[in-house]
Amino acid sequence: MGIIVQKFGGTSVANLDCMRKVQSKVEQALADGHKVVVVLSAMSGETNRLLALAREWSSTPDAAEMDSLVSTGEQVSVSLFTMLLKDAGIHARSLLGFQAEITTDKKYGRARILNINSDKLKALLEDHDVLVIAGFQGCDEDRRITTLGRGGSDTSAVALAVAVGADFCEIYTDVDGVYTTDPNIESRARKIPKISYDEMLEMASMGAKVLQIRSVEFAKKYNMTVHVRSTFSDCPGTIVTQEDQSMEAVLVSGIAYDKDQARVTLLDVYDRPGVASSLFTPLADSGIVVDMIIQNTSRDGHKTDMTFTVPRADLDLTMKIINDIKDTLGANEVLYDEQVSKVSVIGVGMRSHSGVASRMFRALKDEGINILMISTSEIKVTCLIEEKYTELAVRTLHEAFELEKDRMKC
Amino acid sequence: MGIIVQKFGGTSVANLDCMRKVQSKVEQALADGHKVVVVLSAMSGETNRLLALAREWSSTPDAAEMDSLVSTGEQVSVSLFTMLLKDAGIHARSLLGFQAEITTDKKYGRARILNINSDKLKALLEDHDVLVIAGFQGCDEDRRITTLGRGGSDTSAVALAVAVGADFCEIYTDVDGVYTTDPNIESRARKIPKISYDEMLEMASMGAKVLQIRSVEFAKKYNMTVHVRSTFSDCPGTIVTQEDQSMEAVLVSGIAYDKDQARVTLLDVYDRPGVASSLFTPLADSGIVVDMIIQNTSRDGHKTDMTFTVPRADLDLTMKIINDIKDTLGANEVLYDEQVSKVSVIGVGMRSHSGVASRMFRALKDEGINILMISTSEIKVTCLIEEKYTELAVRTLHEAFELEKDRMKC
Repeated sequence: MGIIVQKFGGTSVANLDCMRKVQSKVEQALADGHKVVVVLSAMSGETNRLLALAREWSSTPDAAEMDSLVSTGEQVSVSLFTMLLKDAGIHARSLLGFQAEITTDKKYGRARILNINSDKLKALLEDHDVLVIAGFQGCDEDRRITTLGRGGSDTSAVALAVAVGADFCEIYTDVDGVYTTDPNIESRARKIPKISYDEMLEMASMGAKVLQIRSVEFAKKYNMTVHVRSTFSDCPGTIVTQEDQSMEAVLVSGIAYDKDQARVTLLDVYDRPGVASSLFTPLADSGIVVDMIIQNTSRDGHKTDMTFTVPRADLDLTMKIINDIKDTLGANEVLYDEQVSKVSVIGVGMRSHSGVASRMFRALKDEGINILMISTSEIKVTCLIEEKYTELAVRTLHEAFELEKDRMKC
Repeated sequence: MGIIVQKFGGTSVANLDCMRKVQSKVEQALADGHKVVVVLSAMSGETNRLLALAREWSSTPDAAEMDSLVSTGEQVSVSLFTMLLKDAGIHARSLLGFQAEITTDKKYGRARILNINSDKLKALLEDHDVLVIAGFQGCDEDRRITTLGRGGSDTSAVALAVAVGADFCEIYTDVDGVYTTDPNIESRARKIPKISYDEMLEMASMGAKVLQIRSVEFAKKYNMTVHVRSTFSDCPGTIVTQEDQSMEAVLVSGIAYDKDQARVTLLDVYDRPGVASSLFTPLADSGIVVDMIIQNTSRDGHKTDMTFTVPRADLDLTMKIINDIKDTLGANEVLYDEQVSKVSVIGVGMRSHSGVASRMFRALKDEGINILMISTSEIKVTCLIEEKYTELAVRTLHEAFELEKDRMKC
């Protein structure tokens, strides 16, 4: 008899009716002979309510107090849900982050899990059929409550699955899996039955926000199979797991996009060692994640141009930092463009098949979409384009790689 | 420089405006040179909201889960209030029950404090000017959250005052002190400037619900002076402290009453050893608090009558238990009356002055109020009367003992 972890997000625990559906998922797992660790988020809207309350009270809410405040959201969910299970005669109990001894660092609001007391949880699973554990929260070494950041319950679930030695981790949500692209843009998008950790990481980082990135990194590191599926149906969802041969047979798994981009170009910076470091170190120190970077070949051996992208929300801060240092870089001019977006084709099949990039460029060209920047990785090709072409590009690429072809039925 | 404890109830932390008043009380104490331990209740109405939620979800909510649920109320209060203090530049932090290491027994919903980690709190007070601690809650030895029962924040405050060696404990509430009787019944009721622990216990147990009884017992046991006062004024309130000579000079301190009473009479029970035990042991085992008990002298040496009072809410259960055992007691008939109430005169001055009881009986007689039962203690005389005469009796006794005379101005 194995242990499985089932994680339910905010919309799955929004009210009593939803919680009854969650209960039936847990009961099914019990009937299948599993012990179950249930990980819950706060009821839909509750975290935002608490954040708004804090902002009403304080212009700069203390981060540690904020974590103690918002962690009540999950506390309410797990208590109420455990009451339901106990009413149904199920031997269950709830655990908060500090009770499960989910130890994190002290980075309030975006803490990272350092350790989980596996022995305690395994011992509790000897005595209980179900443990209902608050997601999103942990506790630092001084017993202060921490939270893992938005979407942190996914990471809680995967980390707990690893800690208790679960057979697999189910992530229940309000969508029924990971799609070949955003169905709001391309109605012929298909559910992907199985996807590798690396592909999922690329999909997630590009805005296919089904699973929090860190939870996938965690799953990859410890090789924990994750099944993303819907609370509100019995259909299989998408299994995120180790790469295998069946995946490599698929050339491209999906098309991702990200409109939250801005491009910055420095003209005529010195072409000498240390310039890139002088530019990107202060940006990194300010927490700005620089993505695509292009440095042209020097035209005269002394000067070159440097172009990179940052999240759009960080553009103001980026420009401020650059203005402080641009003279030392020798830059004559700094340009920026907020009307850009990234589109990517993703697939482990690229490792063994050539021609993906050229097929992508040709498809975009055929629609008259100009490519502003290109970057590639082993399993991804990304193009920066004008934002207004985003939807057209996604649909074009979805068709060019024949992703609309039937992959699974449910 | 000493430490003081300031406890604020639900109406004092109901919203941002109220919390600002609480903040000014704390700032005043800091300006006076104290370090401050602030104990907060849940925002007014929050605990009831959570209890209602639980009852909607479960007909018999699990007690441990219930405690975890309702403890979020205080958690929200202390986080938000600490944000306010930190915004004002005050070096403060919040502590939940488990963080302050307030260890209790496992009686969820009505736990008793076993221990508080004084060393940890004293060390934190070296580094902070204010500790904001969640009232009402603790943690059992397995780290499960417990609550102390209604009004438990008062007990938290007094226990914390003892633990940190505070100079005194201020209990801020929405009334400005303890009155000679209920001002809703007798408009000439006066605020009592100073009252002994024992008198306060008698006043509290009779329904003058300003302070939770257990907090007064705690204060008495450790001789912690408690100052009950209003959040919304600067007036001194009532100081609850050790008995002293000035108190003895006052014959009667106050008039208490309790309408939540029912009287039960068993006619013709056997007059032999063990009968009282056979009757009252099963009642006690069911958690029923029997108060006044009268056993008449036997008329024939074989049979007698037995009368006692119980809280009205427990009458049905009491009658059920008695019906099961009345044959073994020999009782011919069992009568009950729900239309009764208790009125008491209370004062440590009785110890050294005679005539209080007779003055009470005479005053009631002069108003035609029949006395159904009488019980006395060192500092209290209680009469059971018909409920409809309660208000009349309270006013009559208040006047008979001249309690309307001016005691303090504010």
